Amino acid sequence: MTNVENPLKGCADLLARLRSQMPLVHCMTNTVVTGYTANSMLAVGAAPAMIDDSVEAAQFASIAGGLLINVGTITEEQAVAMRAAVEAANAAGTPWVLDPVAVGALSLRTALANELKAKHPAIIRGNASEIMALAGLRSTARGVDSTASVEDARDAAEILCVQTDATVLATGEIDFIATVGETSISVANGHPMMTRVTGVGCAQGALAAAFAAVSDKNYRLAALATALVMAVAGDMAAERAQAPGSYQIALLDALSAVSSDDLITRGKVSL
Amino acid sequence: MTNVENPLKGCADLLARLRSQMPLVHCMTNTVVTGYTANSMLAVGAAPAMIDDSVEAAQFASIAGGLLINVGTITEEQAVAMRAAVEAANAAGTPWVLDPVAVGALSLRTALANELKAKHPAIIRGNASEIMALAGLRSTARGVDSTASVEDARDAAEILCVQTDATVLATGEIDFIATVGETSISVANGHPMMTRVTGVGCAQGALAAAFAAVSDKNYRLAALATALVMAVAGDMAAERAQAPGSYQIALLDALSAVSSDDLITRGKVSL
Amino acid sequence: MTNVENPLKGCADLLARLRSQMPLVHCMTNTVVTGYTANSMLAVGAAPAMIDDSVEAAQFASIAGGLLINVGTITEEQAVAMRAAVEAANAAGTPWVLDPVAVGALSLRTALANELKAKHPAIIRGNASEIMALAGLRSTARGVDSTASVEDARDAAEILCVQTDATVLATGEIDFIATVGETSISVANGHPMMTRVTGVGCAQGALAAAFAAVSDKNYRLAALATALVMAVAGDMAAERAQAPGSYQIALLDALSAVSSDDLITRGKVSL
Repeated sequence: MTNVENPLKGCADLLARLRSQMPLVHCMTNTVVTGYTANSMLAVGAAPAMIDDSVEAAQFASIAGGLLINVGTITEEQAVAMRAAVEAANAAGTPWVLDPVAVGALSLRTALANELKAKHPAIIRGNASEIMALAGLRSTARGVDSTASVEDARDAAEILCVQTDATVLATGEIDFIATVGETSISVANGHPMMTRVTGVGCAQGALAAAFAAVSDKNYRLAALATALVMAVAGDMAAERAQAPGSYQIALLDALSAVSSDDLITRGKVSL
Repeated sequence: MTNVENPLKGCADLLARLRSQMPLVHCMTNTVVTGYTANSMLAVGAAPAMIDDSVEAAQFASIAGGLLINVGTITEEQAVAMRAAVEAANAAGTPWVLDPVAVGALSLRTALANELKAKHPAIIRGNASEIMALAGLRSTARGVDSTASVEDARDAAEILCVQTDATVLATGEIDFIATVGETSISVANGHPMMTRVTGVGCAQGALAAAFAAVSDKNYRLAALATALVMAVAGDMAAERAQAPGSYQIALLDALSAVSSDDLITRGKVSL
Repeated sequence: MTNVENPLKGCADLLARLRSQMPLVHCMTNTVVTGYTANSMLAVGAAPAMIDDSVEAAQFASIAGGLLINVGTITEEQAVAMRAAVEAANAAGTPWVLDPVAVGALSLRTALANELKAKHPAIIRGNASEIMALAGLRSTARGVDSTASVEDARDAAEILCVQTDATVLATGEIDFIATVGETSISVANGHPMMTRVTGVGCAQGALAAAFAAVSDKNYRLAALATALVMAVAGDMAAERAQAPGSYQIALLDALSAVSSDDLITRGKVSL
């Protein structure tokens, strides 16, 4: 494996770097999760900014260290701004993350995500159904729910990474990280309560942009750190709270508390 | 009474059905409460989705089990999407809920709510002032605050249900459920802290769409279950927290914890 | 000093008046913080309303006791509505607050904030970088982060208040209140955790509009009360929570709990 020789150590170092550099992350995301995403970024140690106007979004994408494109509540107007931001990010060398929320049955987001997947995202993050739909394998009609199996997720991630040259992070009970020419990696941490809080997956997309910003273009490591930090924080939060309101708060606290050592001692990573 | 012979038992059964079916609820709502609404749905056991684009909204309204139309931060663009979603929901037989937030003094929402009330909503939910304004009885200039009395609320609900053939849920210190040809029902549970958290009423509108989705078109029972579940959860939350931030979280926890038995043992329902 | 003879006593009285009058505050703000802003208003004892359509915004600005204009996620459409609301507020004598989030490097918001600063805001609230940029002194490229010094903030506030005739509240480790012809006031309360939660500054802008609404046009006192209430609540919250998720909730609880006596016994105000 060329670029993650000791994966847990690599993630631990990258988390420390994120906290010392506090990357500025431009989040173009859906209206349901803006606040939780911003709070997740602040909790982990990054600096979020949400800019929606198409002119400003292009200006900001070149200032930011990373960009998130999440199509969860896409409108025609937001699509215009997202295209402008991706263009500016690519011109400036700013890595960007595509989160294809609920692609498949819904036409505007599906067309946009298919258009953007060809524009060199550094990382694509989605649940199994979304990754499958974006890879052209199957669509889902259940919106943000994922009904696909763990094996389906891995297969789809490996196909989509070849199609796009992006690192693909398929999240679920087991998270998979697929990169062209590299062994796939899986992360087995995480807790079912994470599905009872809105925006955990969306916050993970923003976290991927934050890690990409400080990764020296090692997007495989950035995606692995994304999966690991969120899943280990999810485990830690479940030790504090088991009801959805309290868990939502405990997860923010855990994103702040999770240390590089926690990643090493708790991480369940397989190659 | 034709369709709620033992109201508490009916609600208890409907809550169990909601949790086993996990209905997909399309929430077209205001920008203040999107996150809290989604978390409320996940907490109680439903699957929320927020889709704003007019084409996608029409596509999704026919996939979803229920649809919420909440005009709290209406714009011209959102009004177009809401009309498309209501049309699609009616064509597909998807029940939908109208939440006429702050209708009365504000022109766009008032015109839209008056237009939509003729399009066969299954349930209309509002506070007393909103129900009165939508029934053409009186308007309020205080926005989302309700200044009307308990008796006013009941009278307005009974008039509006005749006008629209919808079940009307007028929420407040006492909640009223009015349906044409049926005795009105009232629910006396609930706690003043519920008015210190933004979005409790709006989440209740979404809950009405979730219960409508699993009610086999018994919208009177769905509205009663909506009132009862939120109010009993409100009582339970007040036993845990009495400050507004903590209460907001405790209410999500209570929406998850409230059981069918809690409804039966705590419910204060009068015919 | 003409209008804040005993500043702590003045703030204590104004907080009591806010809670008895419950002013209706029209918040035109960014999409990240709508929910937290509304909850902050409800916690402290004001009545928030968010109205975005340009026609409704103009209608509502004359009904409300105060108006907040926060350009954090500005779009062309929102700019139109904000101009209409400011016009209506000025015509009705409703005091309004300008929060120039991240002005400087981003063109739409910078042009709008520069246009609006000439339209007689009662209070302008921003961090040091934003106040400097709006005063034409220097722009920042880091978005919402403030990298300017405490002395820079005071100087910029004093320049901007002369330019606009508004009371300027520059928030940071030390908050400054500058009004033409008056001695500047500083508030030294507050806690670093306040920067780990999104929307605290934005909620402070809304709080300024609430205090302005009940201040009998004493905007210097309103701005001082804004700084003091948020900073003392921030201190109180830090005694309960030191992790960002829990702190966010503790701050809402503290905004509800903070009493007039707390302001007097804890306030660190200097002339």
